[in-house]
Formats: sequence, structure tokens, C-alpha cells
Amino acid sequence: MSDGSADGANGDSDMPAGSVPAFSPLRTDLTPIVEAVEAAGAAAFVAVGDRFDDDLRYLTRFAGPDRPYALVVVPEANTESEGRPDADRDGADIGRAVCCAPALFGEQANREFVDGAVVHDRVVREVRTAGVGDHAGKRAAAVVAELLGDAGGSESDRTLLVPSSIPHDAAVYLERAGHELASTDAVATARARKTDAELDRLRRVQRATATGMARAETVLATSEVAEDEAGDPAVRWEGEPLTTERLRRAVNAILAAHGVRDAGNTVIGAGPSAADLHFVGDEPILRGETVLLDISPRGPDGYYGDMTRTFVVDGDGGWERRAYVAVEAAREAALAEIEPGVPAKTVHGEAAAELAAYGFDPNADEGGTGFTHGTGHGVGVSLHESPSLSGAGELRPGHVVTIEPGVYDPNVGGVRLEDLVVVTEDGYEILATYPFGIVPEKRE
Amino acid sequence: MSDGSADGANGDSDMPAGSVPAFSPLRTDLTPIVEAVEAAGAAAFVAVGDRFDDDLRYLTRFAGPDRPYALVVVPEANTESEGRPDADRDGADIGRAVCCAPALFGEQANREFVDGAVVHDRVVREVRTAGVGDHAGKRAAAVVAELLGDAGGSESDRTLLVPSSIPHDAAVYLERAGHELASTDAVATARARKTDAELDRLRRVQRATATGMARAETVLATSEVAEDEAGDPAVRWEGEPLTTERLRRAVNAILAAHGVRDAGNTVIGAGPSAADLHFVGDEPILRGETVLLDISPRGPDGYYGDMTRTFVVDGDGGWERRAYVAVEAAREAALAEIEPGVPAKTVHGEAAAELAAYGFDPNADEGGTGFTHGTGHGVGVSLHESPSLSGAGELRPGHVVTIEPGVYDPNVGGVRLEDLVVVTEDGYEILATYPFGIVPEKRE
Repeated sequence: MSDGSADGANGDSDMPAGSVPAFSPLRTDLTPIVEAVEAAGAAAFVAVGDRFDDDLRYLTRFAGPDRPYALVVVPEANTESEGRPDADRDGADIGRAVCCAPALFGEQANREFVDGAVVHDRVVREVRTAGVGDHAGKRAAAVVAELLGDAGGSESDRTLLVPSSIPHDAAVYLERAGHELASTDAVATARARKTDAELDRLRRVQRATATGMARAETVLATSEVAEDEAGDPAVRWEGEPLTTERLRRAVNAILAAHGVRDAGNTVIGAGPSAADLHFVGDEPILRGETVLLDISPRGPDGYYGDMTRTFVVDGDGGWERRAYVAVEAAREAALAEIEPGVPAKTVHGEAAAELAAYGFDPNADEGGTGFTHGTGHGVGVSLHESPSLSGAGELRPGHVVTIEPGVYDPNVGGVRLEDLVVVTEDGYEILATYPFGIVPEKRE
Repeated sequence: MSDGSADGANGDSDMPAGSVPAFSPLRTDLTPIVEAVEAAGAAAFVAVGDRFDDDLRYLTRFAGPDRPYALVVVPEANTESEGRPDADRDGADIGRAVCCAPALFGEQANREFVDGAVVHDRVVREVRTAGVGDHAGKRAAAVVAELLGDAGGSESDRTLLVPSSIPHDAAVYLERAGHELASTDAVATARARKTDAELDRLRRVQRATATGMARAETVLATSEVAEDEAGDPAVRWEGEPLTTERLRRAVNAILAAHGVRDAGNTVIGAGPSAADLHFVGDEPILRGETVLLDISPRGPDGYYGDMTRTFVVDGDGGWERRAYVAVEAAREAALAEIEPGVPAKTVHGEAAAELAAYGFDPNADEGGTGFTHGTGHGVGVSLHESPSLSGAGELRPGHVVTIEPGVYDPNVGGVRLEDLVVVTEDGYEILATYPFGIVPEKRE
């Protein structure tokens, strides 16, 4: 069952890692959203989007629809509940949250947003399917009007907080209903610091990511080299030429068998294409060239893993060996900085400095030779979210970031090593460890 | 390589099905967008979104970024090219299309949007990475200003056509630059009728879908039944209890091995959960209950497959047998209607009438008993797109729709049978056939 169990339902549960069944519900504390509305003197928070909107996914845990739906959050003080018989007389509730589900998704929305939601945020959750034929923005405006009732009189009371990228047509519906819109970063801020329950999900998907990497490394370790028709030293596996696409399919099948999906993110480059940060094409793999694997699957709860390793089959210890040593050192330098209170930029700065010390350009442009990207980014229900290790701000406990220094030469190849770490009270924890080494070994 | 070959580069190519390599580029004819701008007397078309925006994916074939990017399309007549030395003197070009790629995605955007683009639409394509730190809406506004130059004088010349769900912050940037926004359905209309190259992609992903179904049916056919601890007749496979999640992992691994991804869409219900249209939880599978599998993977080009079959292990021929016969008849009734010029609603009406003739409620509510949904929807780079078989409009050659009648009893189970068909000049073609039968057979 994907619902019904109270275990793990509290996003702040301190249940031990590993004890969570595959489909225990994950719920989000909506207190920061209620507080943001109150702090802004606004009337309500409204978000509109589909299953690909990660803010909504985070807030509602509703995974379903590929058509727009809406979430409305109203602080209890802004509702007209006082006059109603079912009002919250003891003042225990702080707000109401209504999910306007699309047609045919009412059951799923109830299961994922409401049922078994043992959340201690005292926000009353509800799914509505009234007016499913109407635009989600129009439905949200109607729910806002109903919940505010006569309470929404003054101008400041008419302001709605919305994510800045709310669909324009939804924004127009809300504006036509007499609201002013103000954007909020409350959701991004809340998302950046993970709860124990979220960390548990991230650990699990990263462990599955490691099984995919182990498959790839084992394939490379058990391959052989033979001259192909063009006279190139082609890597062969199980009697057939090994290509980046063939290797990707092997990795993705293992990910699927472990209950996570590759999400179209399994980047595998070989030789020059390893210098291309987002290569998903099909190329033969040759002896002595860097094979770079960046695996970022998504788990059933929406959380991503992210891991990169680089291997060389039968290498001769040239550019790629030097690059590997430099990237390992940069990784160590970056990790050594990670603790609460450290400016995020420091982590990138230390990694870049280390690569520079090894003679690599630490500020290379995209497609250039050297370190062409940042050292890391936040990971959660989005593959890229706050905080960036190149951005402003300090590291905080619960931040989950990649550490992924890399160097590239578009004529030769690329080396990148990437792990996912959580900032702890006094340092960091690597969410799932995986061995290092440029020479592939059997890992299965 | 994911690019470089001119084969199949033309979206209207009549190259025979099956001859396309896995990564041959697919390009979109932008003529309908240029024409929509001209017909509206507008200045340009602007879209802003990320990799999850299927309109942008269709228009640009750029699969990459999970951060916003922009596409600007300007008819040649609206550009200030006449005064410039590189202007198109012979009038062969009809427009310019600029993709404002995000940081680190310039290479991929060039590869997927520009390189090898043998498209006969005479729209000149270009990728820009200027101002990558700025909001995509701001960058789009700058490109529009540059391309229009002095030509954008009158008020009608300032209007921009945009998709109605363009992000609100992007819309505000464009409005602040002095533009009025008007929404257009030109993209949805263009997407609804598939080219031969698109049909080829849809056929291939649907064939991969069939391999996933064959895996599931084979697992069920080679399973056995044994009493579990609760005394229920549990279906077991390879010595372990078979659950919906275990079956899903087996299916998804086969999909991955065939180069498509499950996209989180593999819905498998057993017994009562088979009546839940979007069940992705974990439940034991028992003898005699309906096992409903709805598999909708996404191929490397972004096109979806969609196929549903229903099986019963060791059934006794009760409700599920009667339901299966009715749904098969409804499927035949629906297919018999499909040809150009037929109102789409007729297809749903005939399927519903057939189910009613078998004694099932053809208008049941979500979660009710009977036929609870529509007979079909369009499929392309979105899993649900135009046309709907419950909506207005007539079927046209090139429309690709699901045919998926089903009946449900929330206390018992559900039966649905679904295929993907393309409307042809004189009828329809099933994109990949798969056998029928409620008793699972070995298919591998």
C-alpha cells in the first residue's frame, strides 16, 4: 500500500535510517508557508503547476498529474472560521491547505496529500475536485475567496504569495479576482534544509545510484579490448562492442530493478564526449580513454541521487591519470571545508585552487580546457536546487550538496568525481560511499 | 553520436520505419509558429520553460536543462535584416529562431537545436549564451528587441505570442519591455498531427512498451499460487511472493534495457487497487484478482508509449471475465469509428454505449463502479495531449490517440485494455500490436 501507515508520516520523524518501507508516506511541514504569509501581511499562498513542478511536489507530495493543479494555503487567522460551526475553537490549528486536484486524480491526491498525514504542523489538509473542468488558477481563486470570506477586506489582505514562476494564465485568474501577487522564496528556503525523513530518502536513492555505478564499473572491469574495423582499440563486453548507450542501458536496468528511475539523467561520455557535461549520445568506448559516468536517478518519493565516477580501460597513465589525481585532491580540499557556517563559495574556491595547483585552469569556459563548472549544487526533489556552492550564503545543517570537481580537455576527455553529502552539526556525511580508482574493478 | 547525421533530420522525411538509428536528430518545422505570428499581426513568438516544458521540447528538441531557457521566433519580415550586410537577400528565409540556452548547456543546445538540422522550414536557427546569469524572460526580451530593431514601431508590432502557461516572471519581463502578450494554441495544434518521423519514434517506443508488457505477462504466466501467512492465495514467482512493486521493477528493468525509461508511469494494480487509475503502491498479488498493467515509458526523443493489459492468475471466470469481454467489445466499437473526419467524441460514445450494453455504467464517477474515464487521449512528447476523444473536433490523419476503455469496481478490481493508434488517410494503424487474453501466457 502506498498509504495508510503512520510510520514515517512525520517529516521530522527520528525513526532510524533503513526502517522505512518503500512506500511509507512522506509529508511536508507547511508551517514555514503559513509563517511566510503572515510575515508578509498577505492573505494566502497559492501555487499552480503539474507533476513536474518540484515546489508543488514538495509541498503536497502529490506525484500524479501531468495537468495543472493548485495548492492554496491560508493561515487560520485569515479564514472566516470564527463564524462557522466547525471552526477550530481551541485555536490549535494554524492554517488550512486545499489541493485542487485535476479530474481523475482525486483519489491519488487524497492518498498522497491527506491520508495518513501525521504531520504536527496543525495545518488542516483537504482535497477538492469541484470545478475540475476549470483552469486550476480559477479554482484556486474560488477557494481563496471561500476561505477568506468577509475577512479579506483591506488591500494588504488581498495580496497572495506565489512562486515567481507560477503559470501566467493562473496569475491572471488570481489578479482578475482582485488579488495582488507577490513572489516568495519560502518554498526554496524550506526545501534547502532536509529533515531526517528526507535524508533517509536521499540515502536510499543514493545507495541505488551506487548499484548502478557498480554495474557500470563491473562491465568495464570484465570487458576486453580488440581492434575494430577502423583499426581502433575497441572495448568489447560479452562479445559485442561496448558503446556509451549500451553501457547506459545496463546501468538503467539495474536502477529500475532497485526501484528508482534513471529519469533520463544517466550521462555517459567516452573520450572527447566525456568533456561534454550532458552527453547522452551513442559512441564506441575505446581503450585508454576516460569513461565518465554521471548517474542521477529519481526515487519513488521524488528525491534524486547524484554520483559521478571516471574510469579508463587499459590506460597508459597520461593526461587522464594526472587529471584523476588532481580531481581527487580537489575533492578532498572541498570536503575539508564543509561544516555549518562556512560560506558556500569557499567550498568551490578551495576545489578550484587545488585544481589550479595541479596546473589546470580553474575558470575555464564551457567547452574549454580545465575546470568548467561549479563544485556543487543542492539536491532534493529537484536535481539542482539550493544551495549552490558558487552562490551566496552559508552552509547549514541539513543542506544536501554534490561535491563534484572535474577537469576536461575537449580533445581528450574528462575526469569528474562526485558524491552527495549532507552538512551535519559538525561537518558532513557522505550519503552513500562508493570506491575510487581509475582502473575499473569488479564490484558485483 | 547524437548528432551529425542528416538522415532523418527532416521531420517530414519519408524514410522507411525502422531504419532510423537510435539517436538520429529529430527537428521540428517551425513554419506554423512563424505563420501564427504573421496571422496575429504580432512581432514574435516567445516561450520560456525548462526540460519539463513539452511545448519547448517539441519546438527545440533540446532535452537538457532543468533550469529555464527561452525560445524566440521572429518572422523574417519583422526583422531589421534589410539594412544589414548578412541579410537574406533572395528572400528564401521566412524567420529566425533563437534559443537562449542556460549556463553550461550551450553545447547541448547547439547539438540538439541547430546542428545537422536539415529542416526545410527556412527558419534560421541559432543558440545564444549571452547573459546566462539573467532570467530567461529578460534574455528573451533582449533578443526580441535586437531582432526587431527599428521595425517594431507600431502597437500591433509590439505584441508577442506566448503559450498561455508561460512563467509569470518571464511574462512580466516581456511586458516591462513594452510588449503585450497574447496566448496562442499554434504549438498544441502543430503537435497534434504527427509527421512520419514522429510516428517512427512513437512506433519504436510503443514496441519497447510491448517488451515490458511481455515481461509482466511472462512473470504472471510462470508464477504459482501458495497460501500466505494470512491464508490468502498468494501469487509467487521465483520462490518469492509477487507484489505490484516487484512486478513493476521487473517491467521497468526491461524497459531500461530497451533504451526507454519508465518515467514513473508504470501503474500496476491488483484487485481493488486495479480500480485506482494511478496506483503505484506495493500490494501482494492474489489468485483470481485482476492485475492491471498500464505502461507508459518515454523514449530518448521524448515521445511516450502507452499500453494497458489486464490479466488474472488462475481466475474463476466471475466479474473479471464478464468485464474483459465487455471491454474487448468496447475497444472494437471504438476502433471501428476511427477515420478522418469523425468527431472525436463519437469514439468515446461508441465505447461507452457498448459497455452500457454489457450492463456497466458508462458514466461512473471517479472511484465509482463502471466506466469512470474517457476512451482516449492524444500522445506525443506529452503523455496526455490533443486530441481528447471526449473533446470537440474531428479526427485528422496524423492524430495519435490511445483507445482505452475500462470498467472498475472499487471492491473487486478493474479491467482496461489500451493501445496506441494513429489516424491514417482511410482509417487507423495500431502502432505496436500486443496479444489479448485474460489468462497470462509466456511471451518471452
